[in-house]
Amino acid sequence: MQKKLIEILNEIMMEVTQHQSTGEVATYIPELTSIPPDKFGIHLYAVTGDNYGLGDNLEKFSIQSIAKVLTLSLAFNLEGDNLWNHVGVEPSGNSFNSLVQLEYEKGIPRNPLINAGAIVICDILISRLKNPKLEFISYVQKIACNNNINYNSKIVESERNHGYRNSALINLMKSFGNIENKIDDVLDLYFHVCSIEMSCEELSKTFLLFANNGKIPSTEEKIMSTSQSKRINAIMQTCGFYDEAGDFSFRVGLPGKSGVGGGIVAIHPNKYTVAVWSPRLNKKGNSSRGIKALELLTTKTELSIF
Amino acid sequence: MQKKLIEILNEIMMEVTQHQSTGEVATYIPELTSIPPDKFGIHLYAVTGDNYGLGDNLEKFSIQSIAKVLTLSLAFNLEGDNLWNHVGVEPSGNSFNSLVQLEYEKGIPRNPLINAGAIVICDILISRLKNPKLEFISYVQKIACNNNINYNSKIVESERNHGYRNSALINLMKSFGNIENKIDDVLDLYFHVCSIEMSCEELSKTFLLFANNGKIPSTEEKIMSTSQSKRINAIMQTCGFYDEAGDFSFRVGLPGKSGVGGGIVAIHPNKYTVAVWSPRLNKKGNSSRGIKALELLTTKTELSIF
Amino acid sequence: MQKKLIEILNEIMMEVTQHQSTGEVATYIPELTSIPPDKFGIHLYAVTGDNYGLGDNLEKFSIQSIAKVLTLSLAFNLEGDNLWNHVGVEPSGNSFNSLVQLEYEKGIPRNPLINAGAIVICDILISRLKNPKLEFISYVQKIACNNNINYNSKIVESERNHGYRNSALINLMKSFGNIENKIDDVLDLYFHVCSIEMSCEELSKTFLLFANNGKIPSTEEKIMSTSQSKRINAIMQTCGFYDEAGDFSFRVGLPGKSGVGGGIVAIHPNKYTVAVWSPRLNKKGNSSRGIKALELLTTKTELSIF
Amino acid sequence: MQKKLIEILNEIMMEVTQHQSTGEVATYIPELTSIPPDKFGIHLYAVTGDNYGLGDNLEKFSIQSIAKVLTLSLAFNLEGDNLWNHVGVEPSGNSFNSLVQLEYEKGIPRNPLINAGAIVICDILISRLKNPKLEFISYVQKIACNNNINYNSKIVESERNHGYRNSALINLMKSFGNIENKIDDVLDLYFHVCSIEMSCEELSKTFLLFANNGKIPSTEEKIMSTSQSKRINAIMQTCGFYDEAGDFSFRVGLPGKSGVGGGIVAIHPNKYTVAVWSPRLNKKGNSSRGIKALELLTTKTELSIF
Repeated sequence: MQKKLIEILNEIMMEVTQHQSTGEVATYIPELTSIPPDKFGIHLYAVTGDNYGLGDNLEKFSIQSIAKVLTLSLAFNLEGDNLWNHVGVEPSGNSFNSLVQLEYEKGIPRNPLINAGAIVICDILISRLKNPKLEFISYVQKIACNNNINYNSKIVESERNHGYRNSALINLMKSFGNIENKIDDVLDLYFHVCSIEMSCEELSKTFLLFANNGKIPSTEEKIMSTSQSKRINAIMQTCGFYDEAGDFSFRVGLPGKSGVGGGIVAIHPNKYTVAVWSPRLNKKGNSSRGIKALELLTTKTELSIF
Repeated sequence: MQKKLIEILNEIMMEVTQHQSTGEVATYIPELTSIPPDKFGIHLYAVTGDNYGLGDNLEKFSIQSIAKVLTLSLAFNLEGDNLWNHVGVEPSGNSFNSLVQLEYEKGIPRNPLINAGAIVICDILISRLKNPKLEFISYVQKIACNNNINYNSKIVESERNHGYRNSALINLMKSFGNIENKIDDVLDLYFHVCSIEMSCEELSKTFLLFANNGKIPSTEEKIMSTSQSKRINAIMQTCGFYDEAGDFSFRVGLPGKSGVGGGIVAIHPNKYTVAVWSPRLNKKGNSSRGIKALELLTTKTELSIF
Repeated sequence: MQKKLIEILNEIMMEVTQHQSTGEVATYIPELTSIPPDKFGIHLYAVTGDNYGLGDNLEKFSIQSIAKVLTLSLAFNLEGDNLWNHVGVEPSGNSFNSLVQLEYEKGIPRNPLINAGAIVICDILISRLKNPKLEFISYVQKIACNNNINYNSKIVESERNHGYRNSALINLMKSFGNIENKIDDVLDLYFHVCSIEMSCEELSKTFLLFANNGKIPSTEEKIMSTSQSKRINAIMQTCGFYDEAGDFSFRVGLPGKSGVGGGIVAIHPNKYTVAVWSPRLNKKGNSSRGIKALELLTTKTELSIF
Repeated sequence: MQKKLIEILNEIMMEVTQHQSTGEVATYIPELTSIPPDKFGIHLYAVTGDNYGLGDNLEKFSIQSIAKVLTLSLAFNLEGDNLWNHVGVEPSGNSFNSLVQLEYEKGIPRNPLINAGAIVICDILISRLKNPKLEFISYVQKIACNNNINYNSKIVESERNHGYRNSALINLMKSFGNIENKIDDVLDLYFHVCSIEMSCEELSKTFLLFANNGKIPSTEEKIMSTSQSKRINAIMQTCGFYDEAGDFSFRVGLPGKSGVGGGIVAIHPNKYTVAVWSPRLNKKGNSSRGIKALELLTTKTELSIF
């Protein structure tokens, strides 16, 4: 890896960790509440295979909603453009009206990266796969080149016990006919998806295929078409950060996806992926230090997709 | 210009014009209604100066909302990041709730490319400039390298006579204290901005500075910082197509801006700008053939920002 | 009963049945779809015991949401004014935003006569009663002076199989902490409440206590305080007809409650109750002929609460 | 007047004034801010002509929105049921979404007692009357039997200078074609209507015709039909207190109308009218002590319309 880039990553680490981090860790399930709030890791993976990380970059954390990109990619592959009859590709506006939008738009979620959309994607995976939970984690292990990635069953249970809002969403969609399978089965897969754990190193490596036009760099296996890979990046760009997608695009200028566990992954097409982890979240539910670190990265390198 | 690219533009022209165009022309002011609906022009300008166009690419049309990017760029330059106290950078969700969002968010428009946001930008220009209408059109002429670009006074009058919804927006914002100047003065500038006319050739040339990190290629004049230029592209990417921004990003993969006159301009950073014009609009208010042409362009070249 | 009033009821019957009835019967469960759509019954019960009815006034039908007044009255009695910490007394505005209001108002339904509010009432009954289903139907039988009133188990099953939207509502409220008991238990009681059947004669007799300051006229048993009885009438007046409460108040001028089975009951305090049944519903979900009949009644008698 | 009722009014006065009043006076125009906040007056007028008041019952105050009932009654008389093509009779739900409802319902306000609806009524009066301001105040003087009632020009000016939200409403309605006359003319009449001043004695006397089936008791002049009078009462019942209409109906049980000046008038059909004035407002914008006083009145008399 270029010396220059390594220097920049070290500078970023110094800058973001020298001040007390602000924001609060996610509290809706106990497993997230107990994480030491001042953890910080960053790892950058180039499509060439070069990679570098520092801080808590090798420690596993709950990637949460970041996994929605992975369910989307598998479903897009299996279902093709028929997918877009069940879910849109538009940003969702502010979070306050999540349910009203779903009601107004007759049970079709705005995009596959909000909860309602990811639930629809899980419904489609169940219709398409014989053993959805097993086949999905195998898919993740393949693109991660790592059999050590798995669901966390304690988090699955916690999600299930705090899933009333997700139950509201799926029941509303079912009332509009946009859910095919049994509600309990769909939510079971959805809660498993949310429970996957990775380190920053693993997360950045797993997402490399989106920086490489759908091909896993190390194995050269083509997982999806160039067009599909680009389109998933486009969805991350406009929909990856809830009601902060515009701000992330404005400040960082890369497609990416965040999770309430404090992780963020971003993609510089044809160049690299980068994963950061810092559990304290800003008011919009995205990692405060994570966004700051990525803003510094594209500012210092003077490179973004724009 | 590369032979290959010229061939592609010719193919696109053939493909989009061989079928009857669908959709309707904008009807809210008579000047737009009377435009021959099957006009089609396209013009591509490389940052190197190479350029090529065909169809009705030299005919002037009303660029309408596309000019909002130009007011934004001037105001961003004058006001710096203080601008973001008055207007956000988030996509607006569906058009139906434009007023409720403005009410819920206390008179701060979601972004500078929706009507409410562009009106706020006009208010800021009036506060900053001695002769706002004159200075703004001079700025446009400078970045267009063309003194032949101007307001159309008939369209100004028409906008004024059909501007009740814009009056509703500005009065609501004024009630929240987010408009400093007199309502009539701000709307007068806003209606002038909406009335600018350009051809596809002129439009693509005018936007070159956004593909060139803020510098006019032909004169080498630096109009804004690299960061500001990239950030304006980021805003176009997430907010340039009303409630179709996600879909445009998904299908075309370039930042851009549309207008109800049937024009669209898109930017491939560091490479080129491209302008298309075709008056029939889809249900979301964007040029049907224009979006199709740009989708073909990035598909055939296999190049987008993703 | 006065001759004059009997004449008026006969005239009303003639007038409303001479034209083809408009509107459609409720279709969301098969049991309602199969009802002959042109049934019409009306029955008026004076607090003196005098009563008169005609048409299909002795045929049982599904009173559906009308039963929400009965759950409310029992819960108000058991819980007192503490009830209003869990549910409001304001009309709900248009039906389109039922979920957004519930979200915006943190899971507190606007009133006890919309679905969300009636579900909260069922939750409270479960907390208060040992055997809620049995005790509730006993209460209804007591105020109806009729042991022949009961749940319809086929309708319970149908409601359960089409209850996704109600599941969405209760899950959303549970996520806000406004549901104490198990979701399945609460919905089970709610679906039973919706399944009660009565004839017009039975319905008008059952509601007599609300015209009589909380006392059953025939048994002289005081079921609730005068104030509670008046307040339930007030809630019916402002909230009894979904998004048509204002129009019913305007045209009829009496407190009342409708159900999607085509029934309506109205109360003239200190004078009488009247029940009508006609299955075809207008666009707001209320019986077309039923509203017409009641409008004729207060117009011809020149008596309303206003 | 009955001794008993006089005693009750004295008791009410004592009870509501013995505690420090809560809430704040209206602040949106300076003329209201400067009113001594602890004023309290009450006056009851029987249809027989008997009347009794105490406290500041003879002091004039700004009746504000209470005058919307008077514009409604004049327009209903002039326009008949055609009025309901321009404005509805349904309660408006919560105030937060006033603009979205107007947008969603295509510029037709929910009822004539919210600002948007009263503006539409003013538009209709302008279309119908030669000299609307003069003819309207003459109408008010006639039903008040009092030539001493008039507009307050200082309040007119203040309203005009703080009327941005009302301008937003009228412009939105004009964009939907629901305003016929010039915006400035309509707002001028509207601001005049809002500026009328009366004492509690005058206010209760003015509203007597609504308690008397449309006839002025002292002159026996029939101003409107019995049906129209009842229907205006019905609208007051469901729409007279913004987002507190249900609560007022629940607690007081009479039709009425409030104004931000701290006045409330209520009607007991065929019996009496009562006006109270106390400037401190609760969070919903209605007089705190005023509502309390009326709740005590119907509780102590054990008489309401329910």
